[in-house]
Amino acid sequence: MRPILTPLAQSLPSTVPFTGPEALERRSGVPFRARVGANESGFGPSPKVIAAIAAAAGGVWMYGDPEVHDLKAALAAHLGIPAANVAIGEGIDGLHGLIARLITEPGDVAVTSLGAYPTFNYHVAGFGGRIVTVPYAGHHEDLGALAEAARRERAKVIYLSNPDNPMGTWWSATEIERFIAEVPEETLILLDEAYCETAPADTLPALDIDRPNVIRTRTFSKAYGLAGMRVGYAIGEASFIKAFDKVRNHFGVTRLSQIAAMAALADQDWLAQVVAKVAAGRERIHAIAAGSGLAAVPSATNFVAVDCGRDGDYAMRVLKALEARGVFVRKPMAPGLDRHVRISVGRDEELDVVAAELPGALRGAD
Amino acid sequence: MRPILTPLAQSLPSTVPFTGPEALERRSGVPFRARVGANESGFGPSPKVIAAIAAAAGGVWMYGDPEVHDLKAALAAHLGIPAANVAIGEGIDGLHGLIARLITEPGDVAVTSLGAYPTFNYHVAGFGGRIVTVPYAGHHEDLGALAEAARRERAKVIYLSNPDNPMGTWWSATEIERFIAEVPEETLILLDEAYCETAPADTLPALDIDRPNVIRTRTFSKAYGLAGMRVGYAIGEASFIKAFDKVRNHFGVTRLSQIAAMAALADQDWLAQVVAKVAAGRERIHAIAAGSGLAAVPSATNFVAVDCGRDGDYAMRVLKALEARGVFVRKPMAPGLDRHVRISVGRDEELDVVAAELPGALRGAD
Repeated sequence: MRPILTPLAQSLPSTVPFTGPEALERRSGVPFRARVGANESGFGPSPKVIAAIAAAAGGVWMYGDPEVHDLKAALAAHLGIPAANVAIGEGIDGLHGLIARLITEPGDVAVTSLGAYPTFNYHVAGFGGRIVTVPYAGHHEDLGALAEAARRERAKVIYLSNPDNPMGTWWSATEIERFIAEVPEETLILLDEAYCETAPADTLPALDIDRPNVIRTRTFSKAYGLAGMRVGYAIGEASFIKAFDKVRNHFGVTRLSQIAAMAALADQDWLAQVVAKVAAGRERIHAIAAGSGLAAVPSATNFVAVDCGRDGDYAMRVLKALEARGVFVRKPMAPGLDRHVRISVGRDEELDVVAAELPGALRGAD
Repeated sequence: MRPILTPLAQSLPSTVPFTGPEALERRSGVPFRARVGANESGFGPSPKVIAAIAAAAGGVWMYGDPEVHDLKAALAAHLGIPAANVAIGEGIDGLHGLIARLITEPGDVAVTSLGAYPTFNYHVAGFGGRIVTVPYAGHHEDLGALAEAARRERAKVIYLSNPDNPMGTWWSATEIERFIAEVPEETLILLDEAYCETAPADTLPALDIDRPNVIRTRTFSKAYGLAGMRVGYAIGEASFIKAFDKVRNHFGVTRLSQIAAMAALADQDWLAQVVAKVAAGRERIHAIAAGSGLAAVPSATNFVAVDCGRDGDYAMRVLKALEARGVFVRKPMAPGLDRHVRISVGRDEELDVVAAELPGALRGAD
């Protein structure tokens, strides 16, 4: 009998790209004391966001606006571009899925760095695409090698995060602009700027909404503190932006998510405070690492990659030891990166826990 | 130069299956006085849901559990089936998109009724599937003709809503079971039970989680009053349920949506009150229609299809006239159904507006 699933669907693994901290807590039976593994913002959303959600809770019987009109307009005004150049989706993950779908036929090539964001790869593979990886150059994504791979493979898409996840490093706007110029125009550049708010001022190229092969993705999940609300946005040339309407789940951005993101965007003072706290927290993680004799990678994000000083197996044991001590962190798995654990900037009391538990975790991993 | 979009993506229209009432309000500049067009629940969510959302608002900096473990467990317990037979997604719309993706290769056939839920068609077409439609038999979906079309076309999927949207009619569990037995096992039956809570007791077949070609979808959007939160669920055989993990947006169900749905499920008293109000509201809509000399279709849902008594053009003019008078309704567009406008059961004060405005709208449509 003919199977119900398509051959492609049959071939895909049933997988979850990231294990949530809740799943780890269910296994251990003990809640984490420091939730610093998913690059969430422990400083929380703006109090004005919290108030806006509470005030709107009675209205959740209504579908959200499928055009996400008001949030799109507010974002466009904030960015100084037309609303026709902004698409809003269920987090950057949701947008990645739609982008992969719009551009990927079975066998099409996506170029990415070995160890970069796995959810992008998940979506590309989910449409039958072939992932071609380029190793990091030290702690940075290798712009020259990525562009070269795109040319060589006639890639359909090239994925780059700036600032980078999982290492926290960044390239300057000038270097990114040079990279964009080097990539063939028939290759879409998916420039993931999830961590743009915490990056130095010269990290982000000016918005060029006329270039049809560049899509930039940003999110309310990180510095704005709305990870649980799932609101990401894409900035790009209008015809590509319009293409999202071909495939998106039109009512997918919840009513409260739209309201929360509007309130978050309106409170730039809160964002500035969070950004300052993130900068201080990065320094503190560097100091905590140094206190145990470890180096850490300079970061433009809300997390820091700490070099555990030995190989990937050792770093994994450090991670497990931290978990056992109530500290949720994650780590890169790719060769060269895998000696690091990635610690998100949390609240002071969470970093207190990290400071208290890291020495013991390092001993426990021996 | 090679286009960036796939040929399939290029061929798809950029469309929104439903125009939201917000878009209509933006055009007219006047808010609706009766929002009775999208089969939302004007009675709102349970007060306990509102309290749960407000209490959890400060925690939205955390991603929701990607396994949606607690809600899935609660639903499974409520339904008396294992959690392995339940998948949760971003509304039924989100689940429809995933189901279409899992089963549709270009050219594969989906059978549905002419005039049935358009978002299902949107998703099937979005993966290159071919829609084969079967006319309604009167006000009911034609079970025999649907099964016959599935056999004739070797359909990959057959879509059936019970109770039906947009007409509100229903078949008994016995008739649905006979239909399921008639459809070839290589055809997936997508049984959409979005309106199950407001249906008579003998409408829903017993859950049969061992049948691999039946997936049933339900939602918190209707009687539970959570349309804006986007929480739907699918019930099916475990291997199909597990396949959702191949393609879903794992963090897509927001943290507050999970919390709200848990609270809604726990308050069955509220649900029972809403169901009683819906039943009374249906009777009132029948009476309002009768007051203008119009017939209305008996309904098992939270809406009633009112026969405007002439052709589809006339009914469209009635709809427009209602809109102009502050009443948001929708209507079926398929021949045979299109003489109806579909009025959702709203709060008493909303139905007061409908009662006050319908006679004038009918005159205005002449």
